[in-house]
Amino acid sequence: MTDNVQPASDRRAFLVGAAAGAAMLAPQPALAAGDMEALRKAVAAGHDASIKRIQDWIANPTIAAEGRNIAGGADYMAQLARDSGFQNVRIVPTDGSPGVFGTIDSGARTWVGVYFMYDVKQFDPAEWSSPPLEGRVVDRPGLGKAIVGRGAVNQKGPEGAFLAALHAFKAAGRKLPVNLVLVAEGEEEIGSPHFPQIVRDPEVMAALRKCRGIFLPSAGQDRDGTSDITLGSKGVIELELVSSGEHWGKGPSKDVHSSLKAMVDSPAWRLVQALGTLVTPDGNTPAIDGWFEKVRPLSDRERALIAENARLTSEAERKKELGVAHWIDDLPWQQALERLASQPTVNIEGLVGGYTGPGGKTILPHRAVAKLDLRLVPNMTAADCLAKLKAHLAKRGYGDVEVNMTGGYDPTETPEGAAIIKAHQAILTRHNISYSLYPRNAGSWPGYVFTGRPLGLAADHFGLGHGSGAHAPNEYFVIEPSDPRVAGLDAMVLGFAEFLYELAAMK
Amino acid sequence: MTDNVQPASDRRAFLVGAAAGAAMLAPQPALAAGDMEALRKAVAAGHDASIKRIQDWIANPTIAAEGRNIAGGADYMAQLARDSGFQNVRIVPTDGSPGVFGTIDSGARTWVGVYFMYDVKQFDPAEWSSPPLEGRVVDRPGLGKAIVGRGAVNQKGPEGAFLAALHAFKAAGRKLPVNLVLVAEGEEEIGSPHFPQIVRDPEVMAALRKCRGIFLPSAGQDRDGTSDITLGSKGVIELELVSSGEHWGKGPSKDVHSSLKAMVDSPAWRLVQALGTLVTPDGNTPAIDGWFEKVRPLSDRERALIAENARLTSEAERKKELGVAHWIDDLPWQQALERLASQPTVNIEGLVGGYTGPGGKTILPHRAVAKLDLRLVPNMTAADCLAKLKAHLAKRGYGDVEVNMTGGYDPTETPEGAAIIKAHQAILTRHNISYSLYPRNAGSWPGYVFTGRPLGLAADHFGLGHGSGAHAPNEYFVIEPSDPRVAGLDAMVLGFAEFLYELAAMK
Repeated sequence: MTDNVQPASDRRAFLVGAAAGAAMLAPQPALAAGDMEALRKAVAAGHDASIKRIQDWIANPTIAAEGRNIAGGADYMAQLARDSGFQNVRIVPTDGSPGVFGTIDSGARTWVGVYFMYDVKQFDPAEWSSPPLEGRVVDRPGLGKAIVGRGAVNQKGPEGAFLAALHAFKAAGRKLPVNLVLVAEGEEEIGSPHFPQIVRDPEVMAALRKCRGIFLPSAGQDRDGTSDITLGSKGVIELELVSSGEHWGKGPSKDVHSSLKAMVDSPAWRLVQALGTLVTPDGNTPAIDGWFEKVRPLSDRERALIAENARLTSEAERKKELGVAHWIDDLPWQQALERLASQPTVNIEGLVGGYTGPGGKTILPHRAVAKLDLRLVPNMTAADCLAKLKAHLAKRGYGDVEVNMTGGYDPTETPEGAAIIKAHQAILTRHNISYSLYPRNAGSWPGYVFTGRPLGLAADHFGLGHGSGAHAPNEYFVIEPSDPRVAGLDAMVLGFAEFLYELAAMK
Repeated sequence: MTDNVQPASDRRAFLVGAAAGAAMLAPQPALAAGDMEALRKAVAAGHDASIKRIQDWIANPTIAAEGRNIAGGADYMAQLARDSGFQNVRIVPTDGSPGVFGTIDSGARTWVGVYFMYDVKQFDPAEWSSPPLEGRVVDRPGLGKAIVGRGAVNQKGPEGAFLAALHAFKAAGRKLPVNLVLVAEGEEEIGSPHFPQIVRDPEVMAALRKCRGIFLPSAGQDRDGTSDITLGSKGVIELELVSSGEHWGKGPSKDVHSSLKAMVDSPAWRLVQALGTLVTPDGNTPAIDGWFEKVRPLSDRERALIAENARLTSEAERKKELGVAHWIDDLPWQQALERLASQPTVNIEGLVGGYTGPGGKTILPHRAVAKLDLRLVPNMTAADCLAKLKAHLAKRGYGDVEVNMTGGYDPTETPEGAAIIKAHQAILTRHNISYSLYPRNAGSWPGYVFTGRPLGLAADHFGLGHGSGAHAPNEYFVIEPSDPRVAGLDAMVLGFAEFLYELAAMK
């Protein structure tokens, strides 16, 4: 779903830990004298090549929802991996889009996983101010120079910056301080339906078992330089509810004239009435039988983190940003944030049935579809919830309304004390980046494949730098920020190098 | 709405009146010796020009829903009227698309109205087997040669055939047996929102007051040659229900990330819940407060006509044609037809909100729309029903859900004994065309402007010939039928001439 990023103003600063001066003096573990300087030079020398690598990748989009460039995108990903030093790079076939796997064994003590997605979200060029596949470098007022293109921040820019770090190690003649396992998928944007098949490949699984943790390279800074670390994400089920005359056995099997409503049943009305049973009348709380059975309430620590976040973030700014005047039930800010983190949802992403163009058209549609996403909190699971939804519909006589799950996964959780989280905090602290620790992202990513059974890996998103507009027109990734608190491309690349050293020092 | 035509298999034959032999011997009133023969020659001589006139008109579409070619379409209509002999042709401005008015005063005793629409329905060329604006003459297996194009049958073909009749009178040097009043509109396909303004123009109203009746030229034969006469039509309200964060004051004012459903209200869910109150849980009966207050039950005569229609038509064929296995509540055929004629409806034409493309997109839409059409039966009125709908929503707290009526009108009724109906029957009988008399079309046309106050005109659709596919791809109008029971173009043109003679003889 690539909605693994807290909305911007949730990332407001509450600085944890060391003051700036002390932070800058903290030792760089496992870092030989001169290593960082050599890497800095190599990163600077590779700057133009790094930008071009990102732009070339943007020009070669893979879109799972449209079946666009699936095999080509996987081959491209594999080549990017090889070029940056991964060995044994292999395409991992699935029942859907293939994965890509590779390792770098530098003889280090510690293994670390890196998760990549090589697909991007759909786009409509008409909505963009520059061609979405060009990756043009554009001056963004108030932000600086940025690459604008589909996938710029989600996720090719940050992933490209991570690859640039690996290139810099090679160019500087430095050994990687950790061994790496790369696992990439091409269906993140449709809910990663076949990602478990990739991870359960015996070779992939064996490699991941050796890892201390895994991370997704991301642009983790807000436009003011602040950042956040989330300790988990909601799970999600993305699905279509389809009501059709054909499947129902009532209503027409093709669109007929609307005047026939007086004698013919309507699949569109059936969809509306079935939908109406899924939530409370205000549309805000799931009303699916048994939906809350496994919901685990927030812990005291989680509530405390949210309270701190509420205290230090601007409700007014957030409301303005979203164009929202009231939270659900007119909740105050802290309670709204608790609801955001703790409550499962049933959301309508889209309604589509019959005539959808300008004006009207006098038809009785034979089919109507609701696109839903259902967010899950611990300890709900996607499989259990899907079964509950189907049982709920069947019990009410709507067994004919098809439930077509297109993707989804369980919630993700990583303990606050995990080494990868501590390493992340150390980097942010060293760079004097104020950050918030957030118990749970209301969005979703397929981290459960790592954090769940059998691997039980700690999983994180790590990266300096800033970008935004995932899924939207004019998605961007800043390479030369106008705000000095935001890392530019080279600082971001170096940040990944530092992170690897930090991970190498993990106890 | 141009849904003024009973679906094909409702027009099955129950022959009323005279046997073929007797019919052929019936006198042609007001018809001077040689008139018909002269007209026949003129029609044959004008055959190619008649086809070209229809094709040229098809090439010049007016589409009110898209604001396409409004002024140009009215000018074109005016020129067509002038060319066929109308005098004092005038564009009648309205708050929407203009009307066209003209008269032919041939010094006859009787005035008759002709209603034209010059607009057509939207179309998508990708769905057509020949270009929709070309009006190509195509061999249609089982039907014969037909003009294929948007507007071919709805309504430019039949209207063009009527104009061809007027040209034939001119070419043959024959005076029209009646005086004519033409009133044309360009918004029929969006529910004729400004048609009353045209008819209430003082000059138009004065001319229509002189008329004995009014008719819309149409291709009234089914593919097997049978026909029908309907004595009225349901009324209709076509509207959009719009739920938006902006208007509501809750929910977002733009699409936001779907994960925010946990703290942000959803206009899409609001629409679903508001819709759910409009009908019974099975989606089949309006549940709007007071909706049935003015509904007049079927009369005994209406029930008898429907029973006769049920007896003589094939339920199985109709089900097959529509792709329907069961009527509402598993009603038997006759009761289903009674429901069709007698019951008001609330139909969903279309649902559109949020992401409607392939796959999903994780957004919480700020706006969702249901396109509805509500069919009205006597003695409901559009104005009263619109007010009731708004009151119903407001009473349930949905006053913010916008009700945007895009068009509509009251039901239409013409007495079985009206002279224009008798003339219609006489023509069908003379040509040995078996026909059904149907109490009420479940579709709608803006005939109430004529049949209601203050005019109280009898209104009919008249025309021989066959065509189909109104609003659909590959709409066609047969000009050389393979079935001899169907009138070809020239016979259709002559049919209009005969009808005018028949009308001239009305007592």
